[in-house]
Amino acid sequence: MARQMVAVIGDGVCDRATAAVAEEVGRRLAEAGVTVVCGGLGGVMEAACRGAKAAGGRTVGILPGDRASDANPYVDIPIVTGMGEARNVLVVKSADAAIAVGGRYGTLSEIALALKLGKPVVGIRSWQLATAAGPDTGVIPAETAAEAVALALAMTGT
Amino acid sequence: MARQMVAVIGDGVCDRATAAVAEEVGRRLAEAGVTVVCGGLGGVMEAACRGAKAAGGRTVGILPGDRASDANPYVDIPIVTGMGEARNVLVVKSADAAIAVGGRYGTLSEIALALKLGKPVVGIRSWQLATAAGPDTGVIPAETAAEAVALALAMTGT
Amino acid sequence: MARQMVAVIGDGVCDRATAAVAEEVGRRLAEAGVTVVCGGLGGVMEAACRGAKAAGGRTVGILPGDRASDANPYVDIPIVTGMGEARNVLVVKSADAAIAVGGRYGTLSEIALALKLGKPVVGIRSWQLATAAGPDTGVIPAETAAEAVALALAMTGT
Amino acid sequence: MARQMVAVIGDGVCDRATAAVAEEVGRRLAEAGVTVVCGGLGGVMEAACRGAKAAGGRTVGILPGDRASDANPYVDIPIVTGMGEARNVLVVKSADAAIAVGGRYGTLSEIALALKLGKPVVGIRSWQLATAAGPDTGVIPAETAAEAVALALAMTGT
Repeated sequence: MARQMVAVIGDGVCDRATAAVAEEVGRRLAEAGVTVVCGGLGGVMEAACRGAKAAGGRTVGILPGDRASDANPYVDIPIVTGMGEARNVLVVKSADAAIAVGGRYGTLSEIALALKLGKPVVGIRSWQLATAAGPDTGVIPAETAAEAVALALAMTGT
Repeated sequence: MARQMVAVIGDGVCDRATAAVAEEVGRRLAEAGVTVVCGGLGGVMEAACRGAKAAGGRTVGILPGDRASDANPYVDIPIVTGMGEARNVLVVKSADAAIAVGGRYGTLSEIALALKLGKPVVGIRSWQLATAAGPDTGVIPAETAAEAVALALAMTGT
Repeated sequence: MARQMVAVIGDGVCDRATAAVAEEVGRRLAEAGVTVVCGGLGGVMEAACRGAKAAGGRTVGILPGDRASDANPYVDIPIVTGMGEARNVLVVKSADAAIAVGGRYGTLSEIALALKLGKPVVGIRSWQLATAAGPDTGVIPAETAAEAVALALAMTGT
Repeated sequence: MARQMVAVIGDGVCDRATAAVAEEVGRRLAEAGVTVVCGGLGGVMEAACRGAKAAGGRTVGILPGDRASDANPYVDIPIVTGMGEARNVLVVKSADAAIAVGGRYGTLSEIALALKLGKPVVGIRSWQLATAAGPDTGVIPAETAAEAVALALAMTGT
């Protein structure tokens, strides 16, 4: 339980409204005693880490590049992979659930990997998926940060 | 040019109609002198490799597990990664374009990674993507194997 | 500085004397305010984490398998890679220096990778390397845990 | 059998004598019908691929960077990983045996990983290993390319 981690995934550049949502997600996770894990860079990742640190929480950034200094200033534990986009798999594998805030193709890859691994994924203004057979219901939609965190924690048994 | 590779991505288990499409994709790529790269396992991957070999082509399978013997019998070059789903990134990075035939979440992760890397992605009865802003036009739809291969080759300048 | 990490590397199974050395290494790193990063499993890794936790420190385990529960009980932050031995690279990349305690081939691979990356490596009863041209001086030998930690910290500017 | 692969490992920059040995290793492997797999860059890797192609063989280069064009001109199949040094693991996992020609720390990491995985490793003027307990006999020494290839093939049952 003390080890529980939730991934916050989203784009490395984002507008102010998106950042505010991500920051609240990070804060609420920290308040629940959950470690925030993310890709360690800017945008949604930085906002989530900032929120978590403001609430006294713990943050892990799994970085694509070769330098710990690439991490945003709110990352406590920078994991340096030098693996580029392949690090997305590690973000998802290390988490008990994922919350996507907006996001572009990198986020979509993390959503897909989390769903493949059978992990709960909650999306706030994020991807909507469909196949030839109809809409895919893998991503659980949430309207607010509070709702997203509540859903993610409920599904991981916290 | 001799080195050109196109990824054929799709599920490790598939119905007969899907396999027939994948096999024709593999055959047509081989006829165009293009190497087929895939995840090396069954279903769509095996069908694409079988088609390529029937046309005298070359096939590469980038495997998630630790054993070359996991590769389907139509893989010429098994690359053993032991990296699980993280090997999806290598399939996409090694290819000049990707053709998705059907597919589930693993395929979706490869589609997303290819789009993030700016590589052309053609989809046959595959994922349909949308964001809060509307439909995403990253995946180019094709109805047939012939159309998919023609589109992929056109976009990679062959 | 708060982010400084030192890798403790060694075998997943070890005798009592080796474990005692690793435990002291972990304790002394924690006392210096340095996070211990390791492969997250048993033997030297577990002993180092136990020592670090006894001194109130922080521990990161970068795991080869697919389950956070593979981590030894003294790991605070389990990073789940599912990448097998390729995770050794991440242990080394995430650290500012490495201390090898004994060790077999897996440890040797981490020593080699750390030296390739230009990171300081201190060895206690660990590998001795030579090429056709003579002894290789990359690994700095230490007799005790205290000496090893002092050398590693000196070389990373703490 | 048709799928058999032997890794040729060594430095990306090497002197003429070392390159001549690597080239002969590549040629002899190709003459035995074995695919050469390597890290895809220059030096020993390029010489081995050149030798293999001169004998009509097949070559695979598992690249650390993000571009197929990083491969030396004698690589038939460039595998693009973008994983940096972590790609060394894939070179070794994809091979049935490894032949080290000279080499520095990167090569040492590949030797160590191959030994950890229980794969035969033959070394020509390469690393000499010892632990506190005495010399390590994992790397089988060879004086010439002919001897190295014969040893590697004998140990993989070709």
